[in-house]
Amino acid sequence: MKNAVILLSGGLDSTTCLAYAKSYGFNCHALSFNYGQKSIAELNAAKKIAAYFDASHKIFDLDIQQFKHSALTDEDIAVPDFRENNSSIPATYVPARNTIFLSIALAYAEVLDAKDIFIGVSAVDYSGYPDCRPEYIAAFQAMATLATKMGVEEGGIRIHTPLIHLSKAETIQLGHKLGVDYAMTVTCYQATADGYACGKCDSCMLRKKGFAQAAVNDVTNYR
Amino acid sequence: MKNAVILLSGGLDSTTCLAYAKSYGFNCHALSFNYGQKSIAELNAAKKIAAYFDASHKIFDLDIQQFKHSALTDEDIAVPDFRENNSSIPATYVPARNTIFLSIALAYAEVLDAKDIFIGVSAVDYSGYPDCRPEYIAAFQAMATLATKMGVEEGGIRIHTPLIHLSKAETIQLGHKLGVDYAMTVTCYQATADGYACGKCDSCMLRKKGFAQAAVNDVTNYR
Repeated sequence: MKNAVILLSGGLDSTTCLAYAKSYGFNCHALSFNYGQKSIAELNAAKKIAAYFDASHKIFDLDIQQFKHSALTDEDIAVPDFRENNSSIPATYVPARNTIFLSIALAYAEVLDAKDIFIGVSAVDYSGYPDCRPEYIAAFQAMATLATKMGVEEGGIRIHTPLIHLSKAETIQLGHKLGVDYAMTVTCYQATADGYACGKCDSCMLRKKGFAQAAVNDVTNYR
Repeated sequence: MKNAVILLSGGLDSTTCLAYAKSYGFNCHALSFNYGQKSIAELNAAKKIAAYFDASHKIFDLDIQQFKHSALTDEDIAVPDFRENNSSIPATYVPARNTIFLSIALAYAEVLDAKDIFIGVSAVDYSGYPDCRPEYIAAFQAMATLATKMGVEEGGIRIHTPLIHLSKAETIQLGHKLGVDYAMTVTCYQATADGYACGKCDSCMLRKKGFAQAAVNDVTNYR
């Protein structure tokens, strides 16, 4: 079995991504980050989800708080309500977040001799984030191959993004087929520690809409 | 004055790099990493050097230790002695190190609205490291520009590598011209906390040879 590193936030997308990697027979090593996100519910969920999918799990501490810039990590900035026309880059943007996450995943991959890294980004529902686009992922993959002993000597690193062209609804349909129990996952930026969602923030609205469009029963725990 | 982020280990190369950025009029923000390197002497040196060059200084904690793989961070692996023909990738290699460092520098740069990042890598003396080569740096720069709001909206990130084509001797000559006091810098992998070098490891040997070839007085504190 080939090793793979899966970035696992404990949310809907990354959990679907883990189920996907598992379905392709990878020996999955889940990696989460404790970066000062307001909600600890995600990390609690990630632990349970990794165990459920028989994946190893590491939580990497990362003090991005010291580079305060975002509503996700800065207590002084409120989480914005849902805006229908989300054309500009959202206020919940964390600087260089996926780049940092993927870089640390790359180090972990090299230690595991894993040439495959999975990340659950989607360019469809979150087109405002520069680091969720296919051209960004392709550039990261090219860089990662040049960056590492393993990439240079053994012919390349693969960054897998199975959700990149899927809408939220399509992701839910995919996960549903793969047997994901979405009640385990937490998407809400303001979830309680035990995983109850606000039902009002950007992420909750996109998630609700996704279940409706997918015609899959929404098992999310709303408070 | 334009802001720039300078990766500063406290060694000879990164200190020369900081002096170089300073000479071009950048408002310098030095960034160091506490990643479990055996020698704390480097970080102690970095603090003094940043103050000397009137740069702000941040130390970012990074628990790469949990991905044990390298003689630099693993107590069970001895630091190798100097080998003259250093064609393969050295045992002191830390997985994805420059990629992680540059990614966090990128986040910091975005917060500072800095489009310039300086890193003191050289492809000449350390050609064994994949992440010290010009093609790697070019790939990182391309990725970084696509990764960030600032890169996308304001036209690119620049990764400056003023030492990339310089030998150790040429770096020392450059720093000497820029007024660097190399007694402040620590290169040795096994230096004492107050900065005394072993004089025997790979890094010490390259440094000694560099001063000799540069015909600059070696002011290093050897124990």
